[in-house]
Amino acid sequence: MAEQEKTAITPTREENYPGWYQQVIKAADMAENSEVRGCMVIKPWGYAIWENIQKNLDIMFKETGHVNAYFPLFIPKSFFEKEAEHVEGFAKECAVVTHSRLEDDGKGGLRPAGKLTDELIIRPTSETIIGASFSKWVNSYRDLPLLINQWANVVRWEMRPRLFLRTTEFLWQEGHTVHATKEDAIEETYKMLNVYTRFAEEYLAIPVIQGEKTESEKFPGAVSTYTFEAMMQDKKALQGGTSHFLGLNFAKASNIKFQNREGKEEYAWTTSWGVSTRLIGALIMTHGDDNGLILPPRIAPLHVVIIPIYRNKDEQNKVGNFIESITEKIRHLKYNDEKIKFKIDGRDMRGGEKLWEWIKKGVPIRLEIGPRDVDSNSVFMGRRDKRPREKVGVSVDDLLKNLPSILDEIQNNIYQKALNFQIENTIKIDGKNSFYQFFTPKNKNNPEIHGGFANSHWCGSSKCEEKIKDDLKVTIRCIPLDAYEEIGKCICCGKESKKRVIFAKAY
Amino acid sequence: MAEQEKTAITPTREENYPGWYQQVIKAADMAENSEVRGCMVIKPWGYAIWENIQKNLDIMFKETGHVNAYFPLFIPKSFFEKEAEHVEGFAKECAVVTHSRLEDDGKGGLRPAGKLTDELIIRPTSETIIGASFSKWVNSYRDLPLLINQWANVVRWEMRPRLFLRTTEFLWQEGHTVHATKEDAIEETYKMLNVYTRFAEEYLAIPVIQGEKTESEKFPGAVSTYTFEAMMQDKKALQGGTSHFLGLNFAKASNIKFQNREGKEEYAWTTSWGVSTRLIGALIMTHGDDNGLILPPRIAPLHVVIIPIYRNKDEQNKVGNFIESITEKIRHLKYNDEKIKFKIDGRDMRGGEKLWEWIKKGVPIRLEIGPRDVDSNSVFMGRRDKRPREKVGVSVDDLLKNLPSILDEIQNNIYQKALNFQIENTIKIDGKNSFYQFFTPKNKNNPEIHGGFANSHWCGSSKCEEKIKDDLKVTIRCIPLDAYEEIGKCICCGKESKKRVIFAKAY
Repeated sequence: MAEQEKTAITPTREENYPGWYQQVIKAADMAENSEVRGCMVIKPWGYAIWENIQKNLDIMFKETGHVNAYFPLFIPKSFFEKEAEHVEGFAKECAVVTHSRLEDDGKGGLRPAGKLTDELIIRPTSETIIGASFSKWVNSYRDLPLLINQWANVVRWEMRPRLFLRTTEFLWQEGHTVHATKEDAIEETYKMLNVYTRFAEEYLAIPVIQGEKTESEKFPGAVSTYTFEAMMQDKKALQGGTSHFLGLNFAKASNIKFQNREGKEEYAWTTSWGVSTRLIGALIMTHGDDNGLILPPRIAPLHVVIIPIYRNKDEQNKVGNFIESITEKIRHLKYNDEKIKFKIDGRDMRGGEKLWEWIKKGVPIRLEIGPRDVDSNSVFMGRRDKRPREKVGVSVDDLLKNLPSILDEIQNNIYQKALNFQIENTIKIDGKNSFYQFFTPKNKNNPEIHGGFANSHWCGSSKCEEKIKDDLKVTIRCIPLDAYEEIGKCICCGKESKKRVIFAKAY
Repeated sequence: MAEQEKTAITPTREENYPGWYQQVIKAADMAENSEVRGCMVIKPWGYAIWENIQKNLDIMFKETGHVNAYFPLFIPKSFFEKEAEHVEGFAKECAVVTHSRLEDDGKGGLRPAGKLTDELIIRPTSETIIGASFSKWVNSYRDLPLLINQWANVVRWEMRPRLFLRTTEFLWQEGHTVHATKEDAIEETYKMLNVYTRFAEEYLAIPVIQGEKTESEKFPGAVSTYTFEAMMQDKKALQGGTSHFLGLNFAKASNIKFQNREGKEEYAWTTSWGVSTRLIGALIMTHGDDNGLILPPRIAPLHVVIIPIYRNKDEQNKVGNFIESITEKIRHLKYNDEKIKFKIDGRDMRGGEKLWEWIKKGVPIRLEIGPRDVDSNSVFMGRRDKRPREKVGVSVDDLLKNLPSILDEIQNNIYQKALNFQIENTIKIDGKNSFYQFFTPKNKNNPEIHGGFANSHWCGSSKCEEKIKDDLKVTIRCIPLDAYEEIGKCICCGKESKKRVIFAKAY
């Protein structure tokens, strides 16, 4: 009888997916709930991942001509009220500042004082406050396009918070651009959707489906919203980020006008687009396994962890010198145009305990080095894309020669695995019964597990969309950009439809 | 009669220093007041400077063993009340969130709803909210030192806002560390003060005086506060940033305890330290002149701007090709371990207008290139540390050979000029009359201008400190770390004193 392999994370994904998610975050020491309900503390390991997301996205934004700026955290209530759909979309979840100081309450405590006449909303998104600046910055067609990005914190009051996925405060970037023509603005909207997609696939190793949101799922105030959707391992969809074509809606609300080449004044066309710390949730749920986090090398805070194994001072010195001779060479290797990030874990702890800590944290490559490895000029290598107990002896020469390509291989393996999973679980469904069955959980212990993404026909009516949402908690994630015209019947009402859309349960 | 040189900024520093400051920010397009009273919008040019400050400081923090993390924007009022001095210091200037949504007010508008039971304060600084996490993270001496930094926005309600210097919301970093011993915590406090000083002097080219704050000027809740103070061109002091030894005060308030090597539980020693977007204000006022901003190359978003000069299409092509051949080579040059940042300004505008724009923005080197320069294989170079009309012809070979060293020379010139100014205007004063005269403005039109820093004896009593503050609006900026023991008489009361301190008017 083969011994069953113990896993580092309890419960496993199969046993309880939401429970597994929480435990992975805890085991990798990425974040925790704070004492402020709904707000998270992003711990150093989680924040280092965010820093890498920021760094690489920022480069891509700048390469596409954008510059960063910073706008106020506060939005006067009166500004917020200017765009009707927008305010309706956010009014139910915004933090309101009503006072500007605290004073003695006469009972040994403090009470709010200095009441404000126009209350301030903490930005849930910045279209209206940035629009106020843009209306001053934009005067002539010569000022366009205006291509601005902001890295910031935003607040949307959250009743059912989940680390990284839904938190009252979260970190994000929001791009805001202004264009002279509708075509230019639409081009920008697609361009940034493509930047996001490239980042998700090439850096986060997350395959995504690009598409347009339906009327009921689009951003409050947008003309159209484009999204990239990823499949998590419980087969639910996660919206990775969105890019909005705002038409003239916010230009009219904020009075963003310019003089065109003919000297006539007209409203400008705007876009906005954003991704957030939610991407870290996507990263965890796309790649993680029952032993914890698995990090794609291109986004990992650490590529290689080196664990010295010794029993006494002599061995410690011997191993230590050997490791130093290796790292002296790793220091000069490059992966993805950057130095390879390595760490020697010399803490006074049992080797096995250390190993498992780094497995749970998702570090791509582990090297164990003991006295006998020194003698044979080799190391033991474990890879996070393989099983934890699978280790191979590698000569130091081979290691140094192949380290960058091994990291590439891991990156590709992880991506390919996620892509296969997405393809396997995205099914063309044409019958209503099979559609309903597809979304019915097979396992009563784990009601979250179901079929996956259904690629089915939809007639375009919001009534059908709503019925499916009510019946199954399934929504239209997007109308894929690569959907081709094909005559079919709506999965709900049976009326004629021209395109398939992606239906799924979602985060 | 020599023609008087016109300046780009009106008023000049001499005419109206605060007015000059505002106009430099406007002319360089760095920031503006927002519609939210007290809050600024940091425009791309200002934000690019902040990004360089962030990038370089972050490297220095990481080199000294710190890691980044992120904590909530909100602090529950009850947390905030835990440290008595601390709350007293910040209660008068904090934004209070009292509601979590907006609802229809029945009159076509919105009113706050969802009243909170424990109001939330927007962090003015994060000791108390970070302390809540630290009390969970720190259990054993093995967890120490804990060395965390956070890049964040903070809010301190400001009645008399000034761009970069005093704004209700500002951007900063705040380091928070925990140590097993008092000695370790004090060492950290000094270490970070030294990191700041090195950054100010080597990157911002701002000479500073390190010292300890007096009891009345220290951070609310600190045992001791260390500061680095710079002299602006109106001879007033600007506090660049602070590093606090917090003793056990916040450990007690937040219950941060650890088991020591002997297995006994004890309170931990904490520090905190921060610098903010205020440094940009210091940068402007230390180096700027009557033609605008002057940027030290090590912090400039752009090192070299290239302006093509031509009258027709043929010349445009000729000059364009020549410039391309030069930039192809600049691309491979390095300055301060980074690529040289250059830009070709090909906008359809008059050359002179462009030139002045870049002068006002403070770019270190301007190259003007016309058809005749192509023939002679040379360029016209203007340096921001020289007079605007001073241009020299340089052969392309010399330019390429010397560009990094010219940038170094500019960096050093700017620093040396500021250092000379600081030294010239820091005077040892021993008589009470001369002290009072020193701080009396000589020019009635510009009442801000006065003597500078007085290096004078102080008996140590807060009564003398207060009297001088009341009489002259002069405060003790710091007790310099390099002050030697010297018997003297207090500049205020005449009693015996053992040390000189720095007195100045301050921002």
